[in-house]
Amino acid sequence: MNEISLLCKILPRLKQRDEIAVGPGDDCAAIDMGDDYLLAAVDQLIGDVHYVSATTPAAAAGAKLLKRNLSDIAAMGGVPLYALVTVASSRKEEEWFLEFYDGLELEAEKWNVAICGGDLSALPAGGASEVTTLTILGKTAKNRLCLRSGAQPGYLLFCTGCFGDSLNSGHHLDFVPRLREGEFLAGKYTKAMMDVSDGLLIDACRMATASAVGIELWTECIPRRGSATVEQALTDGEDYELILAVSPDDVPDLKRNWPFPGTPLTEIGFFTSSRPGQVFDRDGNELNKGSYKGYEHFRD
Amino acid sequence: MNEISLLCKILPRLKQRDEIAVGPGDDCAAIDMGDDYLLAAVDQLIGDVHYVSATTPAAAAGAKLLKRNLSDIAAMGGVPLYALVTVASSRKEEEWFLEFYDGLELEAEKWNVAICGGDLSALPAGGASEVTTLTILGKTAKNRLCLRSGAQPGYLLFCTGCFGDSLNSGHHLDFVPRLREGEFLAGKYTKAMMDVSDGLLIDACRMATASAVGIELWTECIPRRGSATVEQALTDGEDYELILAVSPDDVPDLKRNWPFPGTPLTEIGFFTSSRPGQVFDRDGNELNKGSYKGYEHFRD
Repeated sequence: MNEISLLCKILPRLKQRDEIAVGPGDDCAAIDMGDDYLLAAVDQLIGDVHYVSATTPAAAAGAKLLKRNLSDIAAMGGVPLYALVTVASSRKEEEWFLEFYDGLELEAEKWNVAICGGDLSALPAGGASEVTTLTILGKTAKNRLCLRSGAQPGYLLFCTGCFGDSLNSGHHLDFVPRLREGEFLAGKYTKAMMDVSDGLLIDACRMATASAVGIELWTECIPRRGSATVEQALTDGEDYELILAVSPDDVPDLKRNWPFPGTPLTEIGFFTSSRPGQVFDRDGNELNKGSYKGYEHFRD
Repeated sequence: MNEISLLCKILPRLKQRDEIAVGPGDDCAAIDMGDDYLLAAVDQLIGDVHYVSATTPAAAAGAKLLKRNLSDIAAMGGVPLYALVTVASSRKEEEWFLEFYDGLELEAEKWNVAICGGDLSALPAGGASEVTTLTILGKTAKNRLCLRSGAQPGYLLFCTGCFGDSLNSGHHLDFVPRLREGEFLAGKYTKAMMDVSDGLLIDACRMATASAVGIELWTECIPRRGSATVEQALTDGEDYELILAVSPDDVPDLKRNWPFPGTPLTEIGFFTSSRPGQVFDRDGNELNKGSYKGYEHFRD
């Protein structure tokens, strides 16, 4: 059993409603609400899967739970609005829960997100210290919606920020979700965007597959965090950066107008009509094969 | 640490947005969307907390996860629309996941609910077999919204269905969420309704507290499931029935027009201006005190 093959069996069984413009499989679902799309996504954060349970401050775990989801809203060009949170924990110390919610709420207030619902439960001892989830709701104007499937051959592949070594550097906890960058880019400079959480290579491959295009990836151009190797930049994951497709016509304008001096915006490849679903280097070597391509739950 | 005192500390910290008509603390949040309220709630279903992991069919667990949330929508007088689902599991057998989603999707299709997003994760072995969550989104017309806080002194307390022995009887898995009953009642016969999941007594007490009224509960009138005792009917929980406040003026009309012959609708008490937050019997004995009042996570 692996995650991708499992999803390939489950997702087609899930019957959608007519007003759902984007169903499962993109960063968020998008539901037609008239003027706007309602965006909805859910993500989990699990002790000793997504953070080191014994050493991570509860407030940092709470903030990370929200930020992971904000990154999904950013990728759709949206604005976050509401969140619902679950915590199932085997801990007994009230202080941990209060600090967790403090970290979560502090991050929520930065982005004007209201935590409007939730559920607490005890978890039998022995496995994960806790399983937490957050459902994010947001909105985006219809002409700003960005999808994984919107990349076209000839378009350039850009990324925000840098990649690799997220765990050791602490980036996986202290990153800033790219909401402002996503909002600036969406609709005006791109209609194809996604966030990189499982690894640049696997997520680029997902975009290539969804758009039925190939990607020539200029591996030497990928901005790397600290001492990260190219392989780490490609596969470590937890970068929470955006990748996006930009028409060559818009590139000069985008570079000139980019208003975020603290966030690198880098060309790292282009989309091709050949080799759909594949990511390959300048020499044509396929990159998305072999044993390790990024983070997958339930590997064979 | 106990759940109620923990929530009393957490909930006031969560800053709401202006358009949130009902925030955390009721069965669903209600968000002003113009003509309607968007309803949102989340609930968890945990192996060996909410079902016996070794013997419960995966499809029954999947269905229960959705039905618990549908019961919350029913209590607000709403119509369910969309769901987002997370599964964190230590299981390795693909078949379990496929059956779980089959049960979930089958139930979803009964109610025209679209599962439009989700997340799968591996869970470290040793504790719960799985932690699953579902966020339900729905809607209700503004004049139909029912709240826990809407009960008034002199109103009658009604309940649907019967209570107690949910676990042994299998009711906790095979119940039908009271969506049709809730939709019939909401706005027309009641503005104060909630679902009973943690136990009739504790949930009635929550309604009394939220409405700042007392409840005289006619314990001998409570319909009981099978051989359940009065105490079991009061405290077992997992009944997934509705309790509601009805004006005495509307009682004859409600009884005459009740269109669900398969669902008992029973008067079990009335709301008082005295003793706010208390539930007491005909003799004035307070019921909501002592060691066991219903299901609480994280008991002291």
